[in-house]
Amino acid sequence: MAGSGRTSAEFDLAAAQQALAAQPFSRLVQARITEFGGGAATLEIDIREELQQQHGFVHGGVLSYAADNTLTFAAATALGAAIVTGGFSIQYVRPARGRTLRARAQVVQAGRRQAVCRCELTVLDEEGAESVCAVAQGTAMPLNGPAGGGGEG
Amino acid sequence: MAGSGRTSAEFDLAAAQQALAAQPFSRLVQARITEFGGGAATLEIDIREELQQQHGFVHGGVLSYAADNTLTFAAATALGAAIVTGGFSIQYVRPARGRTLRARAQVVQAGRRQAVCRCELTVLDEEGAESVCAVAQGTAMPLNGPAGGGGEG
Amino acid sequence: MAGSGRTSAEFDLAAAQQALAAQPFSRLVQARITEFGGGAATLEIDIREELQQQHGFVHGGVLSYAADNTLTFAAATALGAAIVTGGFSIQYVRPARGRTLRARAQVVQAGRRQAVCRCELTVLDEEGAESVCAVAQGTAMPLNGPAGGGGEG
Amino acid sequence: MAGSGRTSAEFDLAAAQQALAAQPFSRLVQARITEFGGGAATLEIDIREELQQQHGFVHGGVLSYAADNTLTFAAATALGAAIVTGGFSIQYVRPARGRTLRARAQVVQAGRRQAVCRCELTVLDEEGAESVCAVAQGTAMPLNGPAGGGGEG
Repeated sequence: MAGSGRTSAEFDLAAAQQALAAQPFSRLVQARITEFGGGAATLEIDIREELQQQHGFVHGGVLSYAADNTLTFAAATALGAAIVTGGFSIQYVRPARGRTLRARAQVVQAGRRQAVCRCELTVLDEEGAESVCAVAQGTAMPLNGPAGGGGEG
Repeated sequence: MAGSGRTSAEFDLAAAQQALAAQPFSRLVQARITEFGGGAATLEIDIREELQQQHGFVHGGVLSYAADNTLTFAAATALGAAIVTGGFSIQYVRPARGRTLRARAQVVQAGRRQAVCRCELTVLDEEGAESVCAVAQGTAMPLNGPAGGGGEG
Repeated sequence: MAGSGRTSAEFDLAAAQQALAAQPFSRLVQARITEFGGGAATLEIDIREELQQQHGFVHGGVLSYAADNTLTFAAATALGAAIVTGGFSIQYVRPARGRTLRARAQVVQAGRRQAVCRCELTVLDEEGAESVCAVAQGTAMPLNGPAGGGGEG
Repeated sequence: MAGSGRTSAEFDLAAAQQALAAQPFSRLVQARITEFGGGAATLEIDIREELQQQHGFVHGGVLSYAADNTLTFAAATALGAAIVTGGFSIQYVRPARGRTLRARAQVVQAGRRQAVCRCELTVLDEEGAESVCAVAQGTAMPLNGPAGGGGEG
């Protein structure tokens, strides 16, 4: 994650947006972070042709990117910026087609060793109607051992 | 997946490469498929700046894209092209840095209802030395019900 | 699951309790089902010494049993009794100690091919206070192909 | 896990068997550990009626117990006895029926923060023929922060 030298307290939406903008792959995908704080984070991506698979649906790899990143940002609201993603699990529930992909993750529990987060992925259609396309859960861990043990800066 | 109208028997490496090329997101990531058949598939991606996160490592979202797609291609060697990815689980084991990202998946078991596959992700450095950066496992399912029940083509 | 010859409509709490009672391992663990219907199922287990690991906490294997079974019962509310569990993923968030273990699962989405469910596991202490000890998500599939294709009975 | 006061070096097969015997739930299930060391662990369980679900197959909860425990023992070969299981993911590939259930796990990578392990579950029939019934992967973490930071013992 960010390793921005900021403490958890200073790591707010603006800082999260900066951290996201510092990820070349997130710029390639054109993801934006629209919520960050209080144990939750939301990422949005405008759906366009280059994010699709061969049938016109959003590629599973885009959904899994969104799950990975949103789970990690949610964890950062609790553990601070100096974290690494441990892994995650994702289940696709419906082909993703629409105007916007939205991933919202929440911390289930954050301790010294790791934060466990869940994520719901939805697509919004032209009228703004939202339907779930995937669910995920995963973990992130402090970069330098249990939280409080410093930061990578 | 492909829905190419081909039967499983005709779905060979060349057809798999065509299916991959038909995925706009795989073109964006610039993935290539180098092995397809006999229950296994291998995907490779040249590592470059636009695939990274903010610390110079390959973004977790690229690794999860590779896992998702390679698991599904491996499943297609058993179930044919008309399949959907059910979901997967990925654990990151080491920051991914190097010249090439390689994902290799194998079918553990394929039945009528689904194929279960495992995937190992490695990075190759400049000297060609290979080290594991993530492991994944997941499922894919026939698009139109149990295998043999037709194809989407 | 049950394969009780009942249709989905007839598969109610009483039938689910019968299905649970027909599982020798669930009798060994002494699980009871307290909610079944409308896309959700709840399983409870009284915590006792024989369910523990060596430090006095509920063994992870008991939590994973509860996740597996509750996810599958929740899926059965949508798909009927003739289903098989596809797999699941579980994250432990806190050592489980208390009076009662409760697992509650809900269907996220159920289609012809599978149902995707989520599960929250909690422990209730002597005063009835409830705290999350694990979260899980998983899938179940119709035993004989896409739902509607008959039953195992 | 064990918290036996032993260092990783002293934590051998005999100590692992003691740790297993100290788990009441493992005694209830009657699991035995037959291999421990060098990054791998094997657990075996004689299949009998009380471990089944209602169709005469081994209950998924027994398979998930075996995955959970074997992954954690494999991790203990690398991290020592003072660890906690982080979570895991399991995919069932075939109904489990036979004489013996065997779970074998191996460390994929062990660092300061966690060990990532994979597990293969098989059943052995009366003639000793072995077939895979599930695959799992998961993590365990040092109980008191990154490995080397003491022990619970």
